[in-house]
Amino acid sequence: MIVIGVIGSGDEVKELNTLAEEVGFEIGRSGSVTLNGGLGGVMRASAMGAKRAGGLTIGFLPGLDPAQTNPFIDIPVPTGLGDMRNFLIVRASHALIAIGGGFGTLSEIAIALKMKRPVIGVKTDILIDNVLCVESPKRAVSTALSLIK
Amino acid sequence: MIVIGVIGSGDEVKELNTLAEEVGFEIGRSGSVTLNGGLGGVMRASAMGAKRAGGLTIGFLPGLDPAQTNPFIDIPVPTGLGDMRNFLIVRASHALIAIGGGFGTLSEIAIALKMKRPVIGVKTDILIDNVLCVESPKRAVSTALSLIK
Amino acid sequence: MIVIGVIGSGDEVKELNTLAEEVGFEIGRSGSVTLNGGLGGVMRASAMGAKRAGGLTIGFLPGLDPAQTNPFIDIPVPTGLGDMRNFLIVRASHALIAIGGGFGTLSEIAIALKMKRPVIGVKTDILIDNVLCVESPKRAVSTALSLIK
Amino acid sequence: MIVIGVIGSGDEVKELNTLAEEVGFEIGRSGSVTLNGGLGGVMRASAMGAKRAGGLTIGFLPGLDPAQTNPFIDIPVPTGLGDMRNFLIVRASHALIAIGGGFGTLSEIAIALKMKRPVIGVKTDILIDNVLCVESPKRAVSTALSLIK
Repeated sequence: MIVIGVIGSGDEVKELNTLAEEVGFEIGRSGSVTLNGGLGGVMRASAMGAKRAGGLTIGFLPGLDPAQTNPFIDIPVPTGLGDMRNFLIVRASHALIAIGGGFGTLSEIAIALKMKRPVIGVKTDILIDNVLCVESPKRAVSTALSLIK
Repeated sequence: MIVIGVIGSGDEVKELNTLAEEVGFEIGRSGSVTLNGGLGGVMRASAMGAKRAGGLTIGFLPGLDPAQTNPFIDIPVPTGLGDMRNFLIVRASHALIAIGGGFGTLSEIAIALKMKRPVIGVKTDILIDNVLCVESPKRAVSTALSLIK
Repeated sequence: MIVIGVIGSGDEVKELNTLAEEVGFEIGRSGSVTLNGGLGGVMRASAMGAKRAGGLTIGFLPGLDPAQTNPFIDIPVPTGLGDMRNFLIVRASHALIAIGGGFGTLSEIAIALKMKRPVIGVKTDILIDNVLCVESPKRAVSTALSLIK
Repeated sequence: MIVIGVIGSGDEVKELNTLAEEVGFEIGRSGSVTLNGGLGGVMRASAMGAKRAGGLTIGFLPGLDPAQTNPFIDIPVPTGLGDMRNFLIVRASHALIAIGGGFGTLSEIAIALKMKRPVIGVKTDILIDNVLCVESPKRAVSTALSLIK
């Protein structure tokens, strides 16, 4: 199965959550798995969108308590690794879609690029060479899928 | 979704593989997810059994190369953690079924008991208090499911 | 520098702490580094002994807060890995000395044996082939040093 | 003991190695521990400088083989975590000095900033708010030490 990682902050920002939900919906509609960090904000919204499309969702949680996951995650993995779990999200994903910004998202993007995973940015203010920035969630998912070898 | 971890050696031992395949089949038949280390031996056989029953399979690989997974794993997670990935298998599982023995299996059992996850042993020569030893794969899976809170 | 890992429970058991302090003292006296999990019980006592002998001490803590280390650790490493940090203790040690028992100690011993590190047991009730059980702390450290290639 | 992490690429770039050696020398001269990734380039050079000043050096290696460390590391820790070991370097350091650039360095800087560790940049082309850029190795170390609470 194709796994698309969705990265972005856990802060609740309405505009970003709306984008994330559409990204998750498109991933689910394509039959791919949505993988994220299992918490709130972009993580919750993308999982919610994926479930609306009938997709499978996996969340790699920072803590040890599976109950801390959002209710749209089918398979919570309480890694107990803290932010280090970002590495696992990158490693398990065939491509990643970054929504919004922040240092956490930046470190995930840098990790993904070092591991040569395709990274597509939507509404991200992080401008790094090799991050393909697109305008719409639909375009983000189709680009991600087209870049997977 | 309920996740049952299957732990056991990667060595190819016919008797253990037969048991592992039946364990995987029963997990899949129950609608639960089969999680293991993604390689050969007990890991390959249990994933094969799970797929025969139409179940979902996840493999937490020790290395970084997803291609090293066995062909019955739907979602390979190339953790790059080496044997440390055993901790993640324990953490992500609601209950664990141990098949056979060896130091790797022993360390996983010890980790699982320390995290208070139920551990059911089938044909294991590892005798530790708190590991419930049962005779058949069917019994192992039904016991595991009954112990999940 | 030679690094000797000391493994054992964080529970305060007077008899085990006395042994651990002597083990640490002997490691320090030999000019080797004492590495442990940085918390209480056997970890605190072995670090205290090592410092009494002027040795260097390193603690791989389970949490993220370096302040949780005991005061005899020169270099606390707040791994944030939980019990998974046991793997790092094993990997960084040339040999390991296990004091007492419990599931945590058992899992560390199993990990060490799988990685082919020498393990010496003092007052441990864990009877596993390949764990050399000796009577005194002095003998434990001299045996550990003699087994390092 | 104060631990200063030195981050930078393993590529051999003469100009950066010269800076790294001076950074290591200043850390060692201050009585602090030099912590890095244990390999070549900036990691080798900073450890070499630290040893010239009589300082203690620790290397958190990506692989499992301690022999892959450079000869100036007193205590190699073969983490087996791959690039994930960057997190441990950040977590164990009171402050970090970044030399040069690249995606690996960028991800370490982002991780450090998320964990609120002071980051000082020398000759880095990575321009991020909150990274203090200074001109000389001496200034980098004195700034790092002054920022540690």
